[in-house]
Amino acid sequence: MAERVLTERAIEEYRITDEPFYLPVGNETELFEAAYHARLPVMLKGPTGCGKTRFVEYMAWRLNRPLITVACHEDLSATDLVGRFLLEGEETVWHDGPLTTAVRYGAICYLDEVVEARKDTVVIIHPLTDHRRRLPIEKRGTLLEAPPEFMLVVSYNPGYQSILKDLKQSTRQRFVSIEFDYPPPELEAEIVAREGGISLEMARDLVLIGQKVRNLRGHGLEEGVSTRLLIYAAQLIARGIAPIAAAEVALAFPITDDRDLQRSIREIITTVI
Amino acid sequence: MAERVLTERAIEEYRITDEPFYLPVGNETELFEAAYHARLPVMLKGPTGCGKTRFVEYMAWRLNRPLITVACHEDLSATDLVGRFLLEGEETVWHDGPLTTAVRYGAICYLDEVVEARKDTVVIIHPLTDHRRRLPIEKRGTLLEAPPEFMLVVSYNPGYQSILKDLKQSTRQRFVSIEFDYPPPELEAEIVAREGGISLEMARDLVLIGQKVRNLRGHGLEEGVSTRLLIYAAQLIARGIAPIAAAEVALAFPITDDRDLQRSIREIITTVI
Amino acid sequence: MAERVLTERAIEEYRITDEPFYLPVGNETELFEAAYHARLPVMLKGPTGCGKTRFVEYMAWRLNRPLITVACHEDLSATDLVGRFLLEGEETVWHDGPLTTAVRYGAICYLDEVVEARKDTVVIIHPLTDHRRRLPIEKRGTLLEAPPEFMLVVSYNPGYQSILKDLKQSTRQRFVSIEFDYPPPELEAEIVAREGGISLEMARDLVLIGQKVRNLRGHGLEEGVSTRLLIYAAQLIARGIAPIAAAEVALAFPITDDRDLQRSIREIITTVI
Amino acid sequence: MAERVLTERAIEEYRITDEPFYLPVGNETELFEAAYHARLPVMLKGPTGCGKTRFVEYMAWRLNRPLITVACHEDLSATDLVGRFLLEGEETVWHDGPLTTAVRYGAICYLDEVVEARKDTVVIIHPLTDHRRRLPIEKRGTLLEAPPEFMLVVSYNPGYQSILKDLKQSTRQRFVSIEFDYPPPELEAEIVAREGGISLEMARDLVLIGQKVRNLRGHGLEEGVSTRLLIYAAQLIARGIAPIAAAEVALAFPITDDRDLQRSIREIITTVI
Amino acid sequence: MAERVLTERAIEEYRITDEPFYLPVGNETELFEAAYHARLPVMLKGPTGCGKTRFVEYMAWRLNRPLITVACHEDLSATDLVGRFLLEGEETVWHDGPLTTAVRYGAICYLDEVVEARKDTVVIIHPLTDHRRRLPIEKRGTLLEAPPEFMLVVSYNPGYQSILKDLKQSTRQRFVSIEFDYPPPELEAEIVAREGGISLEMARDLVLIGQKVRNLRGHGLEEGVSTRLLIYAAQLIARGIAPIAAAEVALAFPITDDRDLQRSIREIITTVI
Amino acid sequence: MAERVLTERAIEEYRITDEPFYLPVGNETELFEAAYHARLPVMLKGPTGCGKTRFVEYMAWRLNRPLITVACHEDLSATDLVGRFLLEGEETVWHDGPLTTAVRYGAICYLDEVVEARKDTVVIIHPLTDHRRRLPIEKRGTLLEAPPEFMLVVSYNPGYQSILKDLKQSTRQRFVSIEFDYPPPELEAEIVAREGGISLEMARDLVLIGQKVRNLRGHGLEEGVSTRLLIYAAQLIARGIAPIAAAEVALAFPITDDRDLQRSIREIITTVI
Repeated sequence: MAERVLTERAIEEYRITDEPFYLPVGNETELFEAAYHARLPVMLKGPTGCGKTRFVEYMAWRLNRPLITVACHEDLSATDLVGRFLLEGEETVWHDGPLTTAVRYGAICYLDEVVEARKDTVVIIHPLTDHRRRLPIEKRGTLLEAPPEFMLVVSYNPGYQSILKDLKQSTRQRFVSIEFDYPPPELEAEIVAREGGISLEMARDLVLIGQKVRNLRGHGLEEGVSTRLLIYAAQLIARGIAPIAAAEVALAFPITDDRDLQRSIREIITTVI
Repeated sequence: MAERVLTERAIEEYRITDEPFYLPVGNETELFEAAYHARLPVMLKGPTGCGKTRFVEYMAWRLNRPLITVACHEDLSATDLVGRFLLEGEETVWHDGPLTTAVRYGAICYLDEVVEARKDTVVIIHPLTDHRRRLPIEKRGTLLEAPPEFMLVVSYNPGYQSILKDLKQSTRQRFVSIEFDYPPPELEAEIVAREGGISLEMARDLVLIGQKVRNLRGHGLEEGVSTRLLIYAAQLIARGIAPIAAAEVALAFPITDDRDLQRSIREIITTVI
Repeated sequence: MAERVLTERAIEEYRITDEPFYLPVGNETELFEAAYHARLPVMLKGPTGCGKTRFVEYMAWRLNRPLITVACHEDLSATDLVGRFLLEGEETVWHDGPLTTAVRYGAICYLDEVVEARKDTVVIIHPLTDHRRRLPIEKRGTLLEAPPEFMLVVSYNPGYQSILKDLKQSTRQRFVSIEFDYPPPELEAEIVAREGGISLEMARDLVLIGQKVRNLRGHGLEEGVSTRLLIYAAQLIARGIAPIAAAEVALAFPITDDRDLQRSIREIITTVI
Repeated sequence: MAERVLTERAIEEYRITDEPFYLPVGNETELFEAAYHARLPVMLKGPTGCGKTRFVEYMAWRLNRPLITVACHEDLSATDLVGRFLLEGEETVWHDGPLTTAVRYGAICYLDEVVEARKDTVVIIHPLTDHRRRLPIEKRGTLLEAPPEFMLVVSYNPGYQSILKDLKQSTRQRFVSIEFDYPPPELEAEIVAREGGISLEMARDLVLIGQKVRNLRGHGLEEGVSTRLLIYAAQLIARGIAPIAAAEVALAFPITDDRDLQRSIREIITTVI
Repeated sequence: MAERVLTERAIEEYRITDEPFYLPVGNETELFEAAYHARLPVMLKGPTGCGKTRFVEYMAWRLNRPLITVACHEDLSATDLVGRFLLEGEETVWHDGPLTTAVRYGAICYLDEVVEARKDTVVIIHPLTDHRRRLPIEKRGTLLEAPPEFMLVVSYNPGYQSILKDLKQSTRQRFVSIEFDYPPPELEAEIVAREGGISLEMARDLVLIGQKVRNLRGHGLEEGVSTRLLIYAAQLIARGIAPIAAAEVALAFPITDDRDLQRSIREIITTVI
Repeated sequence: MAERVLTERAIEEYRITDEPFYLPVGNETELFEAAYHARLPVMLKGPTGCGKTRFVEYMAWRLNRPLITVACHEDLSATDLVGRFLLEGEETVWHDGPLTTAVRYGAICYLDEVVEARKDTVVIIHPLTDHRRRLPIEKRGTLLEAPPEFMLVVSYNPGYQSILKDLKQSTRQRFVSIEFDYPPPELEAEIVAREGGISLEMARDLVLIGQKVRNLRGHGLEEGVSTRLLIYAAQLIARGIAPIAAAEVALAFPITDDRDLQRSIREIITTVI
């Protein structure tokens, strides 16, 4: 049977060649490295846009492993991850899915927001995350042994999981878990200044706004403003948009439709800037 | 493997050659241009028929980019957006979806009412809306890098979103957000007169009716009468229908089935005209 | 790629050659004609069997346009309306759906009970119902421009719509709306006599029964007896069935299973006849 | 395109050659014949096993029309009724569904328990049940005109319809409706004796049991014992089973699992026999 | 069109050649035989593991009919029962489903736990279970007449049917119904001793435990311990497991997860053994 | 028809060649062996990560049988287990599913978390788990007799089963049931030391933490910390991570998102270490 799998050369596309900009907050890099060498799967927990994806890219670069990222969603099936047969002309050809590719070449496979995936997707990773470390490819009736370099990383945002979408204990207890939060203010300002192309002073103002907005959580705001949105505001300012207008479209409107909350955030903005 | 993608020439069909009629209300054109040049995705928020679609057409014309519009709905899947394999005779041929076409040629992709789409559709845009700016085409196992000219725009009507259909924070916090509302009265009258082919005076009357009807929101009316419906009324009047009859079929019956509300609107109409 | 679309000749099957019997009640024909010439889509609102379908046939005949009717239902998908690829022997052949056929040949497309259709079906008509007037055929990656003669008409029965099945404002506000009700008594008697083949006197009796039964609405009866059922009763009488028996099987049993309501209707029948 | 439709000869399989045993209760045969000649669709309402199916067979024989019966269920789709394309070797061949066959050859099409079918199935019959009398075959893009001999009959059991499964008024008001109930005692005894192969005396006992059990409706029993079950009891008796045992397995156990109700029915049985 | 149906020879696989071990409890064999000769379908009602399946095997052997058993489940469709077209190379080949095979060769078709099947599966048996005795194979447009030897048997466990999964009266009233329960103690001990390979004395102890556990029904226990589990316990004892341990893993743990109930059952076990 | 089944040689991949590390807790190995020789199916009940999978591997090694494990999930269908036809070029080829492979070669088939599978999957094992011991392959119309060496084992975690996902009694009563729990402390410390590569002293500390955390069950904690997580903590410590940090990421964060519970667990950790 014919098969279409990524060649050794194509996998190189997934290798990160330039050092991603990442400023460590605590011992997360040591923990990740220890887990990698102990061949343990890792779960990154934390709010939206706090740097989990960037952290994985940084670690993939540091460990010199290709990184294959899959954004999970309700319709992501085990077949999407593992692979499928496709008819090509008169031939049925096997196509590896991204998880199989990662196992085959010892890459880091990053399942972003794993809790969003269908249950079969979550279960397919079970034999990869215990002492067996192998992927059954049921459609082909074979088993793929994971090389030592293969690593599974998942992310998970505990902030807005409903009971219906919680991860089962039988899945959770397969991961070493690293908790993330927004970077401390000075570090966040450094990130915003650098990525947004503005002065450190202006970045500090934006970070201050971010902190104050995050304090609104529990007062009607579902989740705080992310580091990413602070960078958006900075980028608009760097393109000549007035700081207050930039903060409004990047920090107020995206996170809430509520008129009262928008007004509160606007007050925070005008107080700071 | 064969593939059927839009040729460079066919994409020109999507370029807007005549300046669309659009009267700016605030700083929305500057914000959109800054976001375009900073390569940030944009979300347009606002009620039905207030001019969001027209604004995108206007900006696409101003930035000289092809515009690919997708009306989102409950059954719109990631596959519909990205592309699929189709059997043609004995050959399996790849067909780009509209999002892939937009990425390939650096067009503006406008996902209208994005919240209506299936979750997988919403998640597929994640890697396009952060620093990665690339579209994984999982079915082909490739990655498509977005050129600088590619821009993603989504629209969203916060007025009647249910909790079940809200956008997740992890999606919302990927967009710069511009808020829209109905145009101010004089501007709206100008638009209605021009597009409806009636006198400015008559247009002012229709706009006045529109304003009064919009005040009924919160008194049983789900959403106000749109600028589009005001233009409809104008067009019927221009075709010789009596103004009161035209206003009734264009401004009362379309927005409510409730007999009492219809009567209230009719009273507004007869008071003004 | 091969395609199988209706030939210019086949579309003639959909042209109405004999004037349908229709007696106007108000200004509905003028409104419809004005909307047609202004290229506005029209929504017909009203109860079951009051003549909406007949009115559309009459207007299609008057405007000399082919009429393509689609009875909407829960499983009607956008694909059903727009078209699909089918494998014929070794060839994949495109088949136009009824909406595409109507756009291609400038016919009137009548979506009966549009609220019953799936959401994707409802959304597919959006670009046809604003200034763009075009149909994106996503499966073929093309756009079909509607000729000036194309018109979209939908029907909608506000009587028994549940909240779950209401039309969204973003759809409603795309239509000029004409409201229908049962014809006034003398007109209805004329229709029943003519279509049922009975004397005007007997028809007046049936119409009187109809009016009295309609008054039971709100007293357990979901919807009144339709003009169509009055004609059924007439036709059975014309075939020799005793008037009371005919009225019972045509006017009482079809509209309710409730024994008490059936008894009330029977009393109305025996009082009148 | 090839097609596989029933030949004129095969349709004869569906013609009923021997007079079915049916004893009329009221004017139902006259009503049915009048509706047939007036080309009106008919709905038969009544409880399980009271003779609706037999009545249709009898009328089909009397009118000398082939009878095509479809047992409706939740998964019965419009496609199942109308027809579909099937791949045969290298050829796509059209296969008529049972409704199309009935229209093509002017048969009586009997949709048993129509309320169980999917909504698209119910809606597909709309254009067949008004003045148009034609079947749109959307998959082929054609219209099939019904010949005068074609008749649509549906059955409906109002006893246990839930609100979720009620027929819409827009469907109900398309039918002339004949109501059925169990035959009167002497008639039912005659039927049971003849079909069950027992003496009229014994049949009268069984019918008496049936009547008494039917009186338990509203006291925990969902529906009464059908004429069919009375015949089953008779047939077991005719095969040598003791009358009490036969009555128990045919009249008590099939209709209820409730021990108390079973005991009540057993008491009825032993009192009568 | 090619077809792949069981040959006369293959059906012999389904014939039961050795007399199954079955000890009659009442008049069930006579009732079954009478129903078979009167061509009536039979429903077997009773709790899990009380011998319904074995009884059907015994009757199939006694009547010398092949037995085709189908375990019903939520996804069992009419197509699974009746048959489907499959593509083989370039040819579309018809494959009989198990129900069609049974009708074709006059076998006994046993639908185990019929209430679990999808509604379309349940409805497909309607024309086989009235005077028509024929199976419409809609996908092929043919009718299969059942030979006199064909018999339909279904099983049904009234103990844990929810309201959602109850059989409709229109289905129930098509069957003669035989009720089953666990065998009387002495008979059950004989069965356990014989099938489990232990002494009659030990078997009596196990049966006594079974009886006492069954009395816990209504005190938190959903269903009693089955004859099958008693045989399991016996088989473990015959393999050298200590009687108390064997009773625990066969009679306590399988039927409940509740610690208190497990303790109660353990007390019963240690009191008896 | 072609078929693609595992060759005798490929099945050897599933044979466990090295003795898995397993320390028996009670009489579970004798019970399993007795069930194997009596050809009885076995259900293993117990919490996540307590060693059920390892136990099956150990028994498969001891009985020298290939072991085929299937992780069950909501979308696992009977077809996935039994097999399907796939088109290869111009040929339809049968592919055995894992259950069929296990039956064909007399392997042990282990359905992990069987309650997660779809109902049809659960029902397909019924004829394999009673005296028939055969697998109907309905798609091929054949029966596969299980050789004496075939054994079915399922696992089941009674801790977090909802009512919706409980196993039916008709399924449960087909299994001999062995209950598992976490190993006793000294045994667990031995396992953690050996598998985690740390000193027995440190392992005892981790086990003590584990015991104390398990006591939090019923105080907000859904399920206790598994032996597997204790080994994870040990492995991180063996890689140089400080014991407190290792315990936090392996024993606190994976099992709960609750800040208060995390604090309680951290207190337990710092008290012990």
